[in-house]
Amino acid sequence: MNRICDYLPFWKDLSEDQRSLLQNSARERSYKKGEILHGGSEDCVGLVLVKRGQLRVYTVSDEGKELTLYRLFERDMCLFSASCVLPSVQFDIMVLAEADSEVYMIPPLLYRTLMDSSIAVANYTNELMASHFSEVMWLMDKIMNKKLDSRLAAFLLEERELVGSDTIKITHEQIANHLGSIREVVTRVLNYLCSEGMVRLGRGSILLTDLKRLAELAESSRR
Amino acid sequence: MNRICDYLPFWKDLSEDQRSLLQNSARERSYKKGEILHGGSEDCVGLVLVKRGQLRVYTVSDEGKELTLYRLFERDMCLFSASCVLPSVQFDIMVLAEADSEVYMIPPLLYRTLMDSSIAVANYTNELMASHFSEVMWLMDKIMNKKLDSRLAAFLLEERELVGSDTIKITHEQIANHLGSIREVVTRVLNYLCSEGMVRLGRGSILLTDLKRLAELAESSRR
Repeated sequence: MNRICDYLPFWKDLSEDQRSLLQNSARERSYKKGEILHGGSEDCVGLVLVKRGQLRVYTVSDEGKELTLYRLFERDMCLFSASCVLPSVQFDIMVLAEADSEVYMIPPLLYRTLMDSSIAVANYTNELMASHFSEVMWLMDKIMNKKLDSRLAAFLLEERELVGSDTIKITHEQIANHLGSIREVVTRVLNYLCSEGMVRLGRGSILLTDLKRLAELAESSRR
Repeated sequence: MNRICDYLPFWKDLSEDQRSLLQNSARERSYKKGEILHGGSEDCVGLVLVKRGQLRVYTVSDEGKELTLYRLFERDMCLFSASCVLPSVQFDIMVLAEADSEVYMIPPLLYRTLMDSSIAVANYTNELMASHFSEVMWLMDKIMNKKLDSRLAAFLLEERELVGSDTIKITHEQIANHLGSIREVVTRVLNYLCSEGMVRLGRGSILLTDLKRLAELAESSRR
């Protein structure tokens, strides 16, 4: 069985005191698929370290429109569920369990103490933030430069990799929430993909029938 | 006259050796309005610390479409012009002088050495990245949830604050580059704003004639 020390690359650089502080304060938590771990800026639950499962990190606009920023898998850490740790983080994210998940919760104050006393933890945080920043910049480029049909094709191919099957169980509403769109528009684009023979639409599921053309569409850009 | 120590909040936490290293390695540079300071990932010019002037940080898509991420003013520091300092930064930005500017250039290797030897520098870097991240997330929310007319109204009001005048000297092409759009679309939206009496269009300039309605439009959201 893995312990928290196996998940933290900076563990070897911590002092004995720092190690026992971390070991005594981190809490193991389980979440069922569909549960929300973190819901916006008012709660600062702490840093989430994924032991097992799959988490979705997303934003919600004032009007309730969602957009998936990135996903977290085993060994990933979520910094922004502890935004109180970094005063300059001025945005809210939501974190939801997309599969039954087990995580370590590291209390925000403890993590701040470690950042202020360990160069290794401070620079690990830098790399973690830079990698999340890179994912968001990649997403921004897609949103600015790809049409929705292209982003939807790319999304379906990514889901296929995640579930390991050509049949993806997902509603049009859920796809809209991943892509920052609305259900009606997603349905229109899916009907187009269906009429082109790239997918077949079932009740609550989508079968990918032409992977080659979906991949071409995913690669195409706006102009 | 200000020296580099007056610009760096972590100066007081550096050792004498670190201070003299920084003072001897940082270079003062001047850029004319319109000059590019940094152009993508292949060059890693170093950290740019603004003494005077105004810099624009933006991305360029594969097709050449630009999008302004944020601006830097006096005392601001640009981290991503030294992306080689952080291996997890996997995106390219451009930095251009929007006004005649004077900057300090801090060599990337020197900065990395400071990050690895000073907790204050490592955590300053964290706050700097978090604040840039927040600006990009704010922009993403605008792009996802505001129509172009609303973003253009907000842009014109921000420019008015920057230049201190109701007349803004800018081309439609330049506005398109700030907003990640194309000239034809910007011209169409400007003609609409003109027909509504919110702006008057001149040759290479725009006069804001109804600030109240522009502000209302800037606040309005997509649905």
